[in-house]
Amino acid sequence: MAILQPLIDLVELCHLHGVTNAVISPGSRSAVLTLALARNPHIQCTVVMDERAAGFVALGMAQQLGKPVVLVCTSGSAAYNFAPAITEAYFQQIPLLILTADRPNEWIHQNDGQTIYQSGIYGRHVKASYELPADYVHPDASWYINRITNEALLTSLDKPRGPVHINVPIREPFYPQATENFIPSANLRVIEKIETLSVLPDPVWHSLLDEWENADKILIAVGQYTPGGELKSILTKLTEEFQIPVLGEILGNLAVHEQSLMNHELILGSWNQEILQPDLLITLGGSFLSKNLKKFLRELPPRNHWHISEDSHVIDPFQTITRQIKVSPEYFFPKLFEDVDYLRFVQNDEGGQDEEYLAEWVRAERYIARTKFRFLDDLTSFNDLSAVYFLLKNMPYPAQLHVANSMPIRYASIMGMDRNDIIVYANRGTSGIDGCVSTAIGSSLLTTLPVYLLVGDVAFFYDRNGLLISNLPPNLKIVLLNNSGGTIFRMIEGPASQPELEEYFETRHAYTAVRTAQDSSMLYWAVEEMVELQSVWTVFVEAEKPALLEIRTDPVINAEVFRQLKQSVRIEK
Amino acid sequence: MAILQPLIDLVELCHLHGVTNAVISPGSRSAVLTLALARNPHIQCTVVMDERAAGFVALGMAQQLGKPVVLVCTSGSAAYNFAPAITEAYFQQIPLLILTADRPNEWIHQNDGQTIYQSGIYGRHVKASYELPADYVHPDASWYINRITNEALLTSLDKPRGPVHINVPIREPFYPQATENFIPSANLRVIEKIETLSVLPDPVWHSLLDEWENADKILIAVGQYTPGGELKSILTKLTEEFQIPVLGEILGNLAVHEQSLMNHELILGSWNQEILQPDLLITLGGSFLSKNLKKFLRELPPRNHWHISEDSHVIDPFQTITRQIKVSPEYFFPKLFEDVDYLRFVQNDEGGQDEEYLAEWVRAERYIARTKFRFLDDLTSFNDLSAVYFLLKNMPYPAQLHVANSMPIRYASIMGMDRNDIIVYANRGTSGIDGCVSTAIGSSLLTTLPVYLLVGDVAFFYDRNGLLISNLPPNLKIVLLNNSGGTIFRMIEGPASQPELEEYFETRHAYTAVRTAQDSSMLYWAVEEMVELQSVWTVFVEAEKPALLEIRTDPVINAEVFRQLKQSVRIEK
Repeated sequence: MAILQPLIDLVELCHLHGVTNAVISPGSRSAVLTLALARNPHIQCTVVMDERAAGFVALGMAQQLGKPVVLVCTSGSAAYNFAPAITEAYFQQIPLLILTADRPNEWIHQNDGQTIYQSGIYGRHVKASYELPADYVHPDASWYINRITNEALLTSLDKPRGPVHINVPIREPFYPQATENFIPSANLRVIEKIETLSVLPDPVWHSLLDEWENADKILIAVGQYTPGGELKSILTKLTEEFQIPVLGEILGNLAVHEQSLMNHELILGSWNQEILQPDLLITLGGSFLSKNLKKFLRELPPRNHWHISEDSHVIDPFQTITRQIKVSPEYFFPKLFEDVDYLRFVQNDEGGQDEEYLAEWVRAERYIARTKFRFLDDLTSFNDLSAVYFLLKNMPYPAQLHVANSMPIRYASIMGMDRNDIIVYANRGTSGIDGCVSTAIGSSLLTTLPVYLLVGDVAFFYDRNGLLISNLPPNLKIVLLNNSGGTIFRMIEGPASQPELEEYFETRHAYTAVRTAQDSSMLYWAVEEMVELQSVWTVFVEAEKPALLEIRTDPVINAEVFRQLKQSVRIEK
Repeated sequence: MAILQPLIDLVELCHLHGVTNAVISPGSRSAVLTLALARNPHIQCTVVMDERAAGFVALGMAQQLGKPVVLVCTSGSAAYNFAPAITEAYFQQIPLLILTADRPNEWIHQNDGQTIYQSGIYGRHVKASYELPADYVHPDASWYINRITNEALLTSLDKPRGPVHINVPIREPFYPQATENFIPSANLRVIEKIETLSVLPDPVWHSLLDEWENADKILIAVGQYTPGGELKSILTKLTEEFQIPVLGEILGNLAVHEQSLMNHELILGSWNQEILQPDLLITLGGSFLSKNLKKFLRELPPRNHWHISEDSHVIDPFQTITRQIKVSPEYFFPKLFEDVDYLRFVQNDEGGQDEEYLAEWVRAERYIARTKFRFLDDLTSFNDLSAVYFLLKNMPYPAQLHVANSMPIRYASIMGMDRNDIIVYANRGTSGIDGCVSTAIGSSLLTTLPVYLLVGDVAFFYDRNGLLISNLPPNLKIVLLNNSGGTIFRMIEGPASQPELEEYFETRHAYTAVRTAQDSSMLYWAVEEMVELQSVWTVFVEAEKPALLEIRTDPVINAEVFRQLKQSVRIEK
């Protein structure tokens, strides 16, 4: 048996729990974990040199798989470089199993290389943090490692999902002998978690239905989510049969039904808000993009607000929640529909909701959408908005669209997405720019769909090390809006009016991505006119190699056009 | 008075405490800190987009200044990207003041953008962590902010120095009005720390002197340190007048006196160790590079080991410390010399130490140095070692040499440094590869000396975002050893014998730095022969722009030559 047999077994247990992918950053202390993963025929390994990028590649993979990806690094500051991705995974509720090799405890803070305080290093940004024993002599050690590994994997998948950390102190010698076999122990114990379903007891349902019946204006709003077809169809039916407006955002992946409401950010910046105030608000999903929605609900709060989420943490961004309902939306909404449908039948009641409420939202939606698209169609200058509009209109489908933080997600949010077969992702857990490229790479490694990444120049260069993996996947398509700096600071009034704007906020630069693309053997095009964009688009879309399309725009024009768009949809009161 | 006046005062207080430099990563939540720094005429600001690089730039600056540099970022994962540099600063004992903007506490974990658990985020890797109030209405808030800022700055400079974190929750509106003045309050209170000197009482001295007198074989070993001239001369006199061998390493910056012992890594891999075993070991400084020294002392421990350090943490890498002496080496060694010199005078004693002990070390040193240099001079192939040998022989002086972790520091350690006017730095606090480029950039921004960075390809690409600052300093000279992967794994037996070597450890690649250099407008040369290196050297050295010299070598030859070098100095027993 190998000296480090319990660690070989740990890896095998990952496989037995269904893990199929690992992301490994090279290191010596972590060698046995690397080798156990590389030699496990059921686990596909991806090597990423820079741990910060590695973390986000794993996150992109786990987002695709809906199950934990194993992330391995050596001891020392390597572990800290995973932290941005782990934090994003925590708030975006994506399962990861992080294995950080470490020196045994007695070597910490002894001026020995690559040794820091790794125990509990991710603070509150992991669901759980475990510390393996460094010695395996006593049989309880093997029991403990088996139990911890089982628990860690189960915990990462328990709703809300998230990252789990196991710190792994490893004694020398940590390389196996050439003759040493890497064979998992027989009959490794897998602790299976029997799934439970959280449901609402009848009396609770009745009290909810009473509240529903007593509300004239009911509004459903969906934050970041990837709903399945059944949930989407139930939400559609709630609109169609009960006149309940449903607000979707681009990251809600709700796509359209005939009366979908995708434009609330612009609506609420323009329309008479009082007419739109709900009595009862029902929310599901994660982060909301729309600042105007937050402002609107904080200022004109609903009487009641139900939040449907399996998370027990009270997340209350509108400052309005009155009932935290800890069940899945997939259970709640079908049951809700069934019950209100039944009530309507027995009461011979066409539904008590105010039909005019939906009608007003729909009027607003149609007006804003029409005005917005007219504005976009009439644009004569080439700028960020016209480029994003072109992209969203001309993206092939089915596909995935990753949108980087800062301006790209704001642009995309205002555009909306009307196709069910384009799933939209963004790192809105922490809304950082630090891993947008690597996350898209992680996704593209595990899907055959084309993966489009819409990214600004600052986020692109920040995370360019993600491109340093061998064999970038051919389905990766990066659309880079290069406006020579952090344009977002020019868009918001505060920094835009400071003399320090260009030097300290926007940080103007003249970098281009051409060399970075060449370094990673990507196909590359640069455009700075709409006709150029149109002319390279088909080649870019059809390219069978990873490709980067750099769109150069002028930050001053971008800011002006964005201001005009918001102005164009404003209604004179 | 500005709404955020206490934060303007915080920045002014930094100036009053002597802070002269700040490194700022752009952000919105942190705007008032950025503006207060940018508008403070006494503080020089450097903008670095990528927070990971920014942290190391600040570390390189603080290393030069010997006083804290202020490091500012916005809220969210930005703060985590500082962590690798902060951890390095903690273990390398470099003062930093980290200001992380944050949302007020009530907004944490509420799905609002860029909000994570920032309080205490750096764990045990800061000397102290403070949390400012978000509201300034009560006058005690201003007192508290003033007191915390004073305390934080004093703490960062208290020995052992290190990083200190202030988390700064900031409410909206966080941009000042155009009309708002940024004038620090009058009469800001500065709490001055009256310096104290830790000394040894007479009875303690006597007991130490007794131990000294009773030791036949006394050995002094110096870890990472930058000693002043007086300390160097005292250590020289201890050798010359008392026959005490002093082991220096390249990061000990001891340079030479006639009998300096720089080759102990090779000596201890080759010589009869028992003869070299000390009775009394005296150490100073931080990390030791030599693995053989650690092994030697663990296996043949001295009877007594005094560690001279102002750090009260017991750092015991040889597993031998018997007396932790918490005074500065600058106090201890002159006093020691004076006392033993006096004892010699009153006792008419030529010193009780075994002269043969020093003689043996010197014999070993001379043999090894001669053999090593003969080997290096005779090298016919072009490889990492011959390139590093060339660099160290031909570096202009005075200068600074930054050596990246992994192979470069091992090469440089074996070469040694014989010039007092070349100071050598390396990030040996955590020994990570994650910030070697940015640290050198930080140093080069604050010195007029040329700053040479010797770096391998993995460390270079890992930290290439440091090069994305505007106006890279012209005194930055990067010497890049590009051997197409992590050659260190080929050097150590464990990974070298695994079939996974190239894919999972070395991670072979074909990247070159030419485009990265072009992106940052650096001068660039590539060489792959000694004659090429010789022919571009003068131009590279004399260039008045930031310059990168890429030296391409073959990893297989590198490993073979390194093995041969170690073999060549081995004595047949």
